[in-house]
Amino acid sequence: MIGGFGAALLLATLSAEAQLKPEEQIEYRQAGYSFMAWNMGKIKAQVVDGSVPYNKAQVVAAANAIAAIANSGMGSLYGPGTATDQMGDKTRLKPEFFKNLDEANKLARNFTGAVDKLTSEAASGDQARIKTALGEVGKTCKACHDQFRTK
Amino acid sequence: MIGGFGAALLLATLSAEAQLKPEEQIEYRQAGYSFMAWNMGKIKAQVVDGSVPYNKAQVVAAANAIAAIANSGMGSLYGPGTATDQMGDKTRLKPEFFKNLDEANKLARNFTGAVDKLTSEAASGDQARIKTALGEVGKTCKACHDQFRTK
Repeated sequence: MIGGFGAALLLATLSAEAQLKPEEQIEYRQAGYSFMAWNMGKIKAQVVDGSVPYNKAQVVAAANAIAAIANSGMGSLYGPGTATDQMGDKTRLKPEFFKNLDEANKLARNFTGAVDKLTSEAASGDQARIKTALGEVGKTCKACHDQFRTK
Repeated sequence: MIGGFGAALLLATLSAEAQLKPEEQIEYRQAGYSFMAWNMGKIKAQVVDGSVPYNKAQVVAAANAIAAIANSGMGSLYGPGTATDQMGDKTRLKPEFFKNLDEANKLARNFTGAVDKLTSEAASGDQARIKTALGEVGKTCKACHDQFRTK
């Protein structure tokens, strides 16, 4: 069965993303993760650290940004030739990623599932539940980093 | 009256974003624009160039990502000290931006308005209307670039 990343590899030879160079795929996926990190940080500051007063609208907007990025089809930015073996220090993606696409797909689904949960909890306005959901998102980030990102 | 960017300057001394260094603000805002550009490109390929077959779900996801990023509170990434006069070639933001916050706010509102329209047109599935809406978004991008971005 072809899942998200398997489909992405196929798509990379067929679709819009076919025209993206490896450098561009890396740039765009890093941009997505960077922007998600900013929004994770805003939620953390408000519902975990308490260093910023809780503002429901801001947390909802941040969660929505994370979710929309996560669900935008980033798998197509993981085309062949975009790991460290060919791109050096331009990326931290281990070549192992391409040998374990089933596992990568599973981790990606866990991530988007946790992000969607964060979005619904953000809308509820329950800070304790948002905090829990944010922690779960963090775990799914780390799971992929541990397996497929260089130290 | 304090609008989005005026509020951002105020917030920059009060909120989470106070802890972001100018370099970080620049990195995050550039990430947001980069990721939006990728999604604009996907929509363009499908409804303008026709180089990729139209896929409603992909276009909706792309429009949602653009909208969620645009509405995530990026104004707070435009704090003092983040223009070329202090950050050199790390940014393309002209110092004039900070002397024309009313104009910047107006352009930002035009942008988010056009993006929201793109999202609703994407949901309609009408390719001609999506094409028009994408063009309108592009105009609001250009309006700000022309005034506040270095060549």
